[in-house]
Amino acid sequence: MKRVAVILSGCGVSDGTEIHEAVLTLLALDRAQALVICAAPNIPQTQVVNHATKQVEGASRNVLIESARIARGKIIPLNCLKLSDIDAIILPGGFGAAKNLCNYASSPTNFEVNPDLAKVLQEARRAGKPMGFLCISPVIAAKLFGSENVELTIGVDPETSAAVQRMGAKHVNCDAHNVVIDRRLKIVSSPAYMVAERIADIEVGINKLVQTVLALA
Amino acid sequence: MKRVAVILSGCGVSDGTEIHEAVLTLLALDRAQALVICAAPNIPQTQVVNHATKQVEGASRNVLIESARIARGKIIPLNCLKLSDIDAIILPGGFGAAKNLCNYASSPTNFEVNPDLAKVLQEARRAGKPMGFLCISPVIAAKLFGSENVELTIGVDPETSAAVQRMGAKHVNCDAHNVVIDRRLKIVSSPAYMVAERIADIEVGINKLVQTVLALA
Repeated sequence: MKRVAVILSGCGVSDGTEIHEAVLTLLALDRAQALVICAAPNIPQTQVVNHATKQVEGASRNVLIESARIARGKIIPLNCLKLSDIDAIILPGGFGAAKNLCNYASSPTNFEVNPDLAKVLQEARRAGKPMGFLCISPVIAAKLFGSENVELTIGVDPETSAAVQRMGAKHVNCDAHNVVIDRRLKIVSSPAYMVAERIADIEVGINKLVQTVLALA
Repeated sequence: MKRVAVILSGCGVSDGTEIHEAVLTLLALDRAQALVICAAPNIPQTQVVNHATKQVEGASRNVLIESARIARGKIIPLNCLKLSDIDAIILPGGFGAAKNLCNYASSPTNFEVNPDLAKVLQEARRAGKPMGFLCISPVIAAKLFGSENVELTIGVDPETSAAVQRMGAKHVNCDAHNVVIDRRLKIVSSPAYMVAERIADIEVGINKLVQTVLALA
């Protein structure tokens, strides 16, 4: 049984994990009989966004506690995730990946990755454990593995693809039904809602990403 | 193209809509080319629960605004939902169905259904439009249609099945891979996480429920 960490960043596309992407990742992993460990940083969210109006609200929420909604309570703090306990790592997207797991959203040309996340992803790379990145989260892979010229996709957006290329990544345009596979670095990416409008479309790429990550593990 | 209202009750199994059930309902509807209209009451949540600790928190949240997280912002207030705009209605589960759409959770022997919800469900019944109820939400069908001896399932829990029977419903034990169909009233139910532990299991019953509801529409 393959053990896969799913890294969450809140609960909701505008300030946390994109819920559909996370749930379809969990579904594909469960269908494949994988053991899932959800993890999220125990930190305040950068923002709380009213998803009905898209307005930023004043309230404060915690990334781990909100992520627990998607995980139905089965979640651990990211700094408790041990690489020895997992065979692969997958990051769903949503603005939480760009606001809470790193600060790409506010500082696209000069951002930092959450140190606990950077540590486990870099350890996974050194250990040859595969990683999957959905939607906007490949900017994190570009930041950490651009020096190794990681090949990935964030869809077709010119601005974001230029950003990942500035970090050294090789960008490949891709639709929501497909994945880009860097077999050398064992990094798989699919653009999901970076390009798609419909949940049935993102499911196709997410299924391929999960199957590819598991096959590489 | 069939038009289906999905009634949400927040965002998270312990105080709102069960997220996996809602997302898999949206997925099955999209796969079937249905047009989805998400709706939720514009009212305060009965509770806010920390899903990591299961503790009730002091904060207040709004059912419509939190539901918008699952709907990616595409949602309308329940009191704006017109029966003439839809061909069918589906209610996912989660404690929100029993805390925010009615007060079954706090008063199982003597509860009331949100008036806007009761109105649209009773109108749908009179118009012969099919309805699907997942997880705990069939208690609402039992309350509204027990006088017509609706046949439904809430899984196998003795206490909850006794409660729906007291309201006049006929209860049928059912697992997460199956549905109970009342063809006379066009009411379909599946227990989802009332009985299941795994997301891949609830998907089977939810797919059957969606397909049956659409076939009845």
